[in-house]
Amino acid sequence: MGRLDSPPLFFMCIDSDQQYLKQCFSLAIQAKGFTSPNPLVGAVLVKNNKIIGRGFHQGPGLPHAEVNAINSALGTEIRDSTLYCNLEPCCHSNKRTPPCVNLIIESGIKRVVVSNIDPNPFVQEKGIKKLREKGIEVDVGQFAIEGEHLNRIFFKNMRSHLPYITIKIASSLDGRICLENGSSKWITSPLSRQYAHQIRLEHDAIMVGINTFLADMPALNTRDNSNKVIKENKKIILGDMNKLKPQHWQHSNISQALLIHTGNEEYVCSSAIKTYHYKSFGSSLKNLMTALYLDGITSILVEGGQKVFSSFVDEKLYDDAFIFYAPIFLGNGKSNYLNVDISAINLGHRMKIIETRSIENNFLVHLRQE
Amino acid sequence: MGRLDSPPLFFMCIDSDQQYLKQCFSLAIQAKGFTSPNPLVGAVLVKNNKIIGRGFHQGPGLPHAEVNAINSALGTEIRDSTLYCNLEPCCHSNKRTPPCVNLIIESGIKRVVVSNIDPNPFVQEKGIKKLREKGIEVDVGQFAIEGEHLNRIFFKNMRSHLPYITIKIASSLDGRICLENGSSKWITSPLSRQYAHQIRLEHDAIMVGINTFLADMPALNTRDNSNKVIKENKKIILGDMNKLKPQHWQHSNISQALLIHTGNEEYVCSSAIKTYHYKSFGSSLKNLMTALYLDGITSILVEGGQKVFSSFVDEKLYDDAFIFYAPIFLGNGKSNYLNVDISAINLGHRMKIIETRSIENNFLVHLRQE
Repeated sequence: MGRLDSPPLFFMCIDSDQQYLKQCFSLAIQAKGFTSPNPLVGAVLVKNNKIIGRGFHQGPGLPHAEVNAINSALGTEIRDSTLYCNLEPCCHSNKRTPPCVNLIIESGIKRVVVSNIDPNPFVQEKGIKKLREKGIEVDVGQFAIEGEHLNRIFFKNMRSHLPYITIKIASSLDGRICLENGSSKWITSPLSRQYAHQIRLEHDAIMVGINTFLADMPALNTRDNSNKVIKENKKIILGDMNKLKPQHWQHSNISQALLIHTGNEEYVCSSAIKTYHYKSFGSSLKNLMTALYLDGITSILVEGGQKVFSSFVDEKLYDDAFIFYAPIFLGNGKSNYLNVDISAINLGHRMKIIETRSIENNFLVHLRQE
Repeated sequence: MGRLDSPPLFFMCIDSDQQYLKQCFSLAIQAKGFTSPNPLVGAVLVKNNKIIGRGFHQGPGLPHAEVNAINSALGTEIRDSTLYCNLEPCCHSNKRTPPCVNLIIESGIKRVVVSNIDPNPFVQEKGIKKLREKGIEVDVGQFAIEGEHLNRIFFKNMRSHLPYITIKIASSLDGRICLENGSSKWITSPLSRQYAHQIRLEHDAIMVGINTFLADMPALNTRDNSNKVIKENKKIILGDMNKLKPQHWQHSNISQALLIHTGNEEYVCSSAIKTYHYKSFGSSLKNLMTALYLDGITSILVEGGQKVFSSFVDEKLYDDAFIFYAPIFLGNGKSNYLNVDISAINLGHRMKIIETRSIENNFLVHLRQE
């Protein structure tokens, strides 16, 4: 499906362990966008240098990758096989599915190869320890960087208790995201917009400011290339909710959305829609992000407009930024970023370029915080 | 030296003709930036599948590539050899050097292989015709596209009697070329700025607006990576020259510059500097460009600021645009383009992306008119 799928490096798979781990990654990726709050995990069961089982985790409440791999091998002799898995097998029971380590031990698997230690404090090295105590050989760390990249949302969640935050901007060469009259359809090409849906797929929620919402009435979901909805992302609208008028309520999206009211005047929502008051978080974007994480939102794609982008940049609250540029000069309208206080070039917000790529007659820049 | 040097395609040099023509291009490029108003030309003399002579045109008034190639072969038997040359040999005498076709005929060369017909109306196919009349076999057209790319300045000059015009912009992600306070040093990285000197090298003249000139006092020359001046480009300053105060005259560049006064009030230059009055060209940028071409300026690199960029874009008077982006948000200051009249996205000035490339932690976009 594109760049975000692929762990950065997979050259030189020189030994069979690496080849089988690579297969785990390929399996894991198949559930991209559908496992939240769980990580992407794939598993391969190998005996006498032959794959006898494969599996991946398909979503919360469903069996783990290891279970699926072992189940898919039923009928063959699993005993003395090797299990490959990109993430440490779980050992905790405070969840909907039983611990994988027990099943591994019972199956008579003699060796386990994993890329990453599970950053979840309920597991973290405990799964590996338990396996080793039962005499199972465990190898850890091959493709660990790629594994952390694959599950960067999950790793961030576990380590910082914040959603993984990505900024997505569609911009002209002169940095405009819309004309003075609000018009923004379409700056970028159809292929760029399709590509943007791949980024939406990876995220739990899509956030827009109220002005962008009212101007564009975006569907805020993930659609495939034939415009079929493949995922209803959670929807977050940020801004002064008193701007919402009765006619806007006919737009079905609002009733599915989470509203974050930032206005000074009180906002009383006339329906049962979940509403946060920004003030109650001390008007702190970081506090708000923590609250959203505690409410189960593991990742947010921030899609505009200028004010929302600028806040996330100024607070350094994003992980990734994707800017799609179209080769067009617009000459007026809102820039993708506004901060009148920057008085010297070295005080500007500088980032690291991860990748640039051409898309049709557009180009995409992937940035990360320095 | 980089992208601009290399004709776009040289894969699959399957026959020896192509291999020798490729050598002509490599030779021609050695004089890049120094042959104006002449084209870049390289020549190779081959006998019995062995190169017996090489040459390239080094600059106006100096021998042509064919002459240098033939002279370099002195002492060997030139008769019955084949001459390869990227451009048709000249046949006209209204210039400082004698026509090459005569020398070719006298030398007993039996075959000539060229990529491009010379677009100069004094030559155009006449050189080839004369050779053929003397029984010399002439093959034309291999690598013609690459040849036209190599000499795109010369081809444009001959066809439209206008300078080749390139826009060069250093920009933040939000499209700013300077902060509100005028500060612009440095948005882009040292490597980007070095690369920009490769673009300067290819151009006869560098043009800036008066405001940019006064703010930055740029040297407007071409320097190598160790900051040594390798070419003094012609310098053009555009704007209201009444902004020039006595202290600015101490800046040595002004005395070498061509001033184009655009102000309403009359400007009387206190020294012998060449000054054009924009009004006398009907305040038409195109008329001005024609006048500059007639004054011997074959190519112009337009380096800013906003007003100058915007004029060339609005008048569609540029051939290439190079935008160097740094991964920085500035949030205020001048955008690289301004046009308050654009009222719909499809009325924006859209271009074709030729190439994007990473330079250090910057990226460069090369655009051309649609």
